[in-house]
Amino acid sequence: ARIVTLPGDGVGPEVTAAAVAVLKTVAARYEHVFAFEQQLIGGIAIDATGEPLPAAALAACQSADAVLLGAVGGPQWSDPNAPVRPEQGLLALRAALGVYANLRPLQVHPALANLSPLKNDKLKHVDVLFVRELTGGAYFGAKTRSADAATDECRYTVAEIERVVRRAFELARGRRHHVTSVDKANVLETSRLWRSTVQRIAADYPDVKLEHQLVDSMAMLLLTRPNRYDVVVTENLFGDILTDEAAALAGSLGLLPSASLGDGRRGLYEPIHGSAPDIAGQGVANPIGAILSAALLLRHSLGLEAEAVAVESAVEQVLRHGPHSRDIGGSAGTDEVRDAVIAAID
Amino acid sequence: ARIVTLPGDGVGPEVTAAAVAVLKTVAARYEHVFAFEQQLIGGIAIDATGEPLPAAALAACQSADAVLLGAVGGPQWSDPNAPVRPEQGLLALRAALGVYANLRPLQVHPALANLSPLKNDKLKHVDVLFVRELTGGAYFGAKTRSADAATDECRYTVAEIERVVRRAFELARGRRHHVTSVDKANVLETSRLWRSTVQRIAADYPDVKLEHQLVDSMAMLLLTRPNRYDVVVTENLFGDILTDEAAALAGSLGLLPSASLGDGRRGLYEPIHGSAPDIAGQGVANPIGAILSAALLLRHSLGLEAEAVAVESAVEQVLRHGPHSRDIGGSAGTDEVRDAVIAAID
Ligand SMILES: CC(C)[C@H](C(=O)O)[C@@H](O)C(=O)O
Ligand SMILES: CC(C)[C@H](C(=O)O)[C@@H](O)C(=O)O
Repeated sequence: ARIVTLPGDGVGPEVTAAAVAVLKTVAARYEHVFAFEQQLIGGIAIDATGEPLPAAALAACQSADAVLLGAVGGPQWSDPNAPVRPEQGLLALRAALGVYANLRPLQVHPALANLSPLKNDKLKHVDVLFVRELTGGAYFGAKTRSADAATDECRYTVAEIERVVRRAFELARGRRHHVTSVDKANVLETSRLWRSTVQRIAADYPDVKLEHQLVDSMAMLLLTRPNRYDVVVTENLFGDILTDEAAALAGSLGLLPSASLGDGRRGLYEPIHGSAPDIAGQGVANPIGAILSAALLLRHSLGLEAEAVAVESAVEQVLRHGPHSRDIGGSAGTDEVRDAVIAAID
Repeated sequence: ARIVTLPGDGVGPEVTAAAVAVLKTVAARYEHVFAFEQQLIGGIAIDATGEPLPAAALAACQSADAVLLGAVGGPQWSDPNAPVRPEQGLLALRAALGVYANLRPLQVHPALANLSPLKNDKLKHVDVLFVRELTGGAYFGAKTRSADAATDECRYTVAEIERVVRRAFELARGRRHHVTSVDKANVLETSRLWRSTVQRIAADYPDVKLEHQLVDSMAMLLLTRPNRYDVVVTENLFGDILTDEAAALAGSLGLLPSASLGDGRRGLYEPIHGSAPDIAGQGVANPIGAILSAALLLRHSLGLEAEAVAVESAVEQVLRHGPHSRDIGGSAGTDEVRDAVIAAID
């Protein structure tokens, strides 16, 4: 299998290196051949080539089996009015790979409940899979800007809604058979189209229970009744906001992975944390979000379920017994956590 | 002073009646004359007239000193594809009154911290004033719908941004001199215009510290560091989501008031809870959100600061000593809470 790595900015290179080390261990232990190719994205790509996603990087991603990304962005490239910005590379990559379904699983490890801002009784049995639409909506709509006004268009086609919602229903069948669709159908036309499309598709999944929530209510319900949700599907911008809110429940952003999938097997995998410029280069970043993203890569792009479970079990052991990195109350560095995960892979 | 009441749907009439009783007590105690006029809005207005905001109701609001609203909506009118919906009345009213600044104060009463999903140490010193832009953005932008696609346009002019942001800075001067502006400037053109407008205005308020946050980060920071924020200003849809998220911290939606203000003194006041159809007509709804909205009405539309403080102090005593309604762990009905507040007004 061919895996392109895009370490990117800030702590991206450190956590990506740890995830690659884990994948190499899996390859050796399970006798697979993984070929890694490193490419540029984000601020480091702008500095080297003037572009946030150089053509060579994009071409490599488009012919790879999977892409493992670290993080993009940093203070030196953060002027939102600059003509070229690191995030543009990430958005262009998502669009070019057609990875319209962004999966963000959320569980709260019992050993870490004390780190969560939520009361511990609220966190029992929290196990949510967010499915965020990733290649449509206001992120990719027409924009205008004049001296005294600006516009963003949010546009969704039925086809765009249908494919991501079907993915959510399929995923619910492998879980607790419950889908919560989030929209703002009392105000937005795109949300009304979203809701009626979801309603039509639900008829094909009579074994899955469907619930609709408005995005404002959902922002509240994620805090008051987080263990009520199984699969939550929503459009791009609502998903951006709700998944970050939900991530706060886990105690540290450093723990959480994501997988972005399209119609084929090729996928884009990245921890949900950002480039964390404040701790970059110090060897203290938590590599677990990146390592769990590599586990999702094994599962979704390479079809290696046993190997994915082996990595996830190893992470579970490290979360239970340590070593823990700083963000989760320990003092271990990135390499120490990586080595502990590798040692726990059987 | 002339006050129009719009009780609306569900528990709206019950909580509005309690707030009116409190206002009448204030009028008697402080020797003011308040004239009340009741009008229709929402589902009840649709049933009576076919329209969610009848012309007579709108005209009454437009010539009143202040408008006190209960809640709109309910299951019998909740089909998002119906041609006429209760929320349209509320949106039309906000636009017609020009109330572009929606103030939503959030404090967590120490006696109620146990009801919050957040750990109590997180809630210490939480005192946030959200200023949500209320008459622009995707709520009021052009919409299209065809068989296979839909669009919503989010549009902001510099003038729309400037007036609400100036209001936020002015309010910060009466508080802790800190403004957090929330946008998604790494993706949206309207957010880039928002951010550069905020930056320009900030120069007129050198005594106020300004911070920018992206909306996804803010959704997380409200949970991890809620006591860090003073005034938070943002556009309509982000404000809708973030204020509901923040409301969950208070332990019950039933406690929280809002004020919607324009350039003059006329304002629209409503509790932030909805019509709560499940408990409507039972006399158990918490009237405190509506009563605190009436206090904001005294302050912002009638300029009666001492009277507003008297109502707020009375509510504070009732929260401290009871009686408490069901949503905050007690068993008192709406009238009992109302009477306790009235008895505590000096
Ligand atoms: C970096 C940014 C463009 C991105 C997004 O908004 O999608 C990030 O917040 C995310 O959620 O992956
Ligand atoms: C009822 C609805 C249209 C409204 C809104 O979205 O503004 C409500 O959620 C609110 O926040 O006041």
